[in-house]
Amino acid sequence: MNLDEARKSFAELQKREFAYNHAMGILYYDGATVAPKESYAPRGVSMGVLSEALYGLATGEATRALLDELAENADKLSAAEARELELMRKDLTELRRIPVAEYVAYTELVNEAEAVWHKAKAASDFPMFRPFLEKIVAAQRRFASLVAPEKDAYDYLLDKYEEGLTQEKCGAFFAALRSGLSPLVEKAAAAKQPDGAVLRCAFPQAAQEKLSARLMELMGIDRDHCGIGTTEHPFTTDFSKYDVRITTHYHEDDFTSSMYSVIHEGGHALYELHTADEYAYTELGTGVSMGIHESQSRFYENILGRSRPFADFLWPYLVQLCPALASHSAEEMYRAVNRVQPSLIRTEADEFTYPFHVMIRYELEKKLISGELDVAQLPEQWNALYKEYLGVDVPDDRRGVLQDSHWSGGSIGYFPSYALGSAYGAQYLAKMKETVDVDGCLSRGDFAPVNAWLEARIWKYGRLLKPGELFERAVGAPFDPKYYVNYLSAKLADVYGL
Amino acid sequence: MNLDEARKSFAELQKREFAYNHAMGILYYDGATVAPKESYAPRGVSMGVLSEALYGLATGEATRALLDELAENADKLSAAEARELELMRKDLTELRRIPVAEYVAYTELVNEAEAVWHKAKAASDFPMFRPFLEKIVAAQRRFASLVAPEKDAYDYLLDKYEEGLTQEKCGAFFAALRSGLSPLVEKAAAAKQPDGAVLRCAFPQAAQEKLSARLMELMGIDRDHCGIGTTEHPFTTDFSKYDVRITTHYHEDDFTSSMYSVIHEGGHALYELHTADEYAYTELGTGVSMGIHESQSRFYENILGRSRPFADFLWPYLVQLCPALASHSAEEMYRAVNRVQPSLIRTEADEFTYPFHVMIRYELEKKLISGELDVAQLPEQWNALYKEYLGVDVPDDRRGVLQDSHWSGGSIGYFPSYALGSAYGAQYLAKMKETVDVDGCLSRGDFAPVNAWLEARIWKYGRLLKPGELFERAVGAPFDPKYYVNYLSAKLADVYGL
Repeated sequence: MNLDEARKSFAELQKREFAYNHAMGILYYDGATVAPKESYAPRGVSMGVLSEALYGLATGEATRALLDELAENADKLSAAEARELELMRKDLTELRRIPVAEYVAYTELVNEAEAVWHKAKAASDFPMFRPFLEKIVAAQRRFASLVAPEKDAYDYLLDKYEEGLTQEKCGAFFAALRSGLSPLVEKAAAAKQPDGAVLRCAFPQAAQEKLSARLMELMGIDRDHCGIGTTEHPFTTDFSKYDVRITTHYHEDDFTSSMYSVIHEGGHALYELHTADEYAYTELGTGVSMGIHESQSRFYENILGRSRPFADFLWPYLVQLCPALASHSAEEMYRAVNRVQPSLIRTEADEFTYPFHVMIRYELEKKLISGELDVAQLPEQWNALYKEYLGVDVPDDRRGVLQDSHWSGGSIGYFPSYALGSAYGAQYLAKMKETVDVDGCLSRGDFAPVNAWLEARIWKYGRLLKPGELFERAVGAPFDPKYYVNYLSAKLADVYGL
Repeated sequence: MNLDEARKSFAELQKREFAYNHAMGILYYDGATVAPKESYAPRGVSMGVLSEALYGLATGEATRALLDELAENADKLSAAEARELELMRKDLTELRRIPVAEYVAYTELVNEAEAVWHKAKAASDFPMFRPFLEKIVAAQRRFASLVAPEKDAYDYLLDKYEEGLTQEKCGAFFAALRSGLSPLVEKAAAAKQPDGAVLRCAFPQAAQEKLSARLMELMGIDRDHCGIGTTEHPFTTDFSKYDVRITTHYHEDDFTSSMYSVIHEGGHALYELHTADEYAYTELGTGVSMGIHESQSRFYENILGRSRPFADFLWPYLVQLCPALASHSAEEMYRAVNRVQPSLIRTEADEFTYPFHVMIRYELEKKLISGELDVAQLPEQWNALYKEYLGVDVPDDRRGVLQDSHWSGGSIGYFPSYALGSAYGAQYLAKMKETVDVDGCLSRGDFAPVNAWLEARIWKYGRLLKPGELFERAVGAPFDPKYYVNYLSAKLADVYGL
């Protein structure tokens, strides 16, 4: 095989891997949105078959030979090809260390665990979910020991979601956050609280659906390539840059829940929709890491979405959709959505207490993976940490340890990305403000200049650059959590008039 | 390989084929329901890859060797295994005659053609769709010549949808229908027409959605295994008996359109939901033919759904959902949904003129496949036949040749199944009435005895028996179109008081 043929085969191989991931992704998305409740069994059968085929494709001798041949010609490859090769060789090496039967069984386990978690959460029944989580934790520990025996298992998992992230870095980051945020949260707790009545205004679902569409339009999301569905737990998934899906949920007595879900997931969607065309159907045609991904979603949700100029801009439209809001004001909403309020649910938490929700999960995951903590003890430990970090009593597992879908999907090591992403976002903002009048844009509901900044510095690269390098190039400096602490301090001072 | 191992491999092979079909089916369903409009390109990529893999699986040397080995042990196989083997060998033989590149290109073509057809229909722009239909017709002609060179091409296509059906049989059937129905239709046309005002009553979509749920409940459709979506063109698809999907559409000024779509698709769904458990994930775990399938859907839609006792039963609930109906009556609705009214749209046609819509498509398909008719002439010929058979003028291609999705999906030879299925249904009814008080059941909204009759005689068999044998066993006699003509005559006499 000459190099041109090898390149063609390489592109073909990536297209085939794309197709299997696309099919499994659609099965998952359908399962999470519109599939009938008891359809997980056939889905499990198909997921098992497809994941086995994908495993065979990714680890087969033909693939290994092809990647070896390309590696021998490394000097002749483009930067994109070289990175594709690096990523695929990493996958191949890692996957070959996991026996195929275990890999397939794990795919089937996760498919079933997600269905069981939904039921267990609805019934607030942790014991129902427990055996599945035990198997998932055991599988993750086992895979880590097979794939990266030289590494600490939780470090291996962190790296899966944010290349280069370790417990050491997380520890330092969380320590900085804790020392920076704890005094702020205490100060706010002692201050006069904004009134939250505006948030509880009855807002019909049909009107909220219109709001979703308007928000996506404002954000510049191309609806011809981005759908929106309804799920209890909002999420984003992409099947190439040409087909992205976000979901939200609607609560008529809590309209900002959906509103900020749409803006959050819309941030993820924008990233996927704007990876470069030439990376479509290759290893590079998606977001590079969960940290960078969350730095988009949480940037839109909080830094832009929960800002005063955007609240002022959006308010007349909200009143038009829901005339009952007329007795309130944009300022009231701005202050209400930025209240510091230690609470039970991560996805509904304010920006200031949010990182503590993440830290709790981080502490627990670390111990589950190290073996210090048994799954059986998890609810008790969860509740104890909520008391310690946030001062709240967890009334039941539905609002406690069962609230998030991540672990049921096997995503252990993902949570730190949320806090890290939030902190990345604050540093983008500082840099962005050097050239973009962000507040001016928001006051006009004009996201285009912000989108253009992010597209040029982040989105278009896909997975070409490692997350650390991508971030540093974008802001021209290493990551520094002080931007995040400073941003939150300034906002708190503004909201509370401190 | 001993026989036990071969059996195990055979089950495994069928499970793998199930998975690929499931994945492609979900891609299709998602594309037809919730996918963003411009997402067909990545879907085409994945469909191409998956269909190539499925082709490889179905035609590979390993499969051939396995099927040959099983064939050598034919005397030791169960009836189910023998039929599975027969069906798979047929597939293998046929598929091996189609070059893989053509097979994959065709999958991609159909994926794109469906997207183009949607746009062309909306714009009533036949020339936009024409090149795609030309390619589809050419591919079907070519495949027929490769797969069954000894057969007439259109006979080959008819047999794909109804094993054993030929133009000779179709011709005799349609001739009997024409001679039986034409005088009836003429008589009705000369009579006083029922008033259709009840059908145009404004019926809010939300209330129609409730009606859909109630109809599915009444029909005994297990919602844990059957979802409902919204599409312009209602259809049913199944991913095993454990996951079936129907779709409907909602028009607020025409509530019976959705109502009868739900009952029709619900009939398809019941069939799929009740194939025997032991056939799941095998060749046998789905409906045997389109004729038998349509004999379920049209039986529920027309024979049960458009009956007087069911109209009487459902009426109070309809009035409850839509109080504006109170000024009308069940009798008015019964007569209105059974009006003889030559019209433009097949899916909205009354039972009496419906077969003519099918005959028109049959005549055109036959000529397209034989080469007598060019795709370019199709709209003109379509319009001429609508004038000749139904006496109506087709105002545009949207309501003419572009109305149905079938050809865009490559389904040529499918349409006769609708008329055949309708006629099968009338013969079921005659037999069923020997042991089931059908009218009594309908007047109580109790579908259970009807379902039980069909499950025992049709549904549970899946593809075990050939359609002809299945039908004859169910009714204890050969197929005879006189039952259909008699049924329609009696109904017409009742509706028109003739």
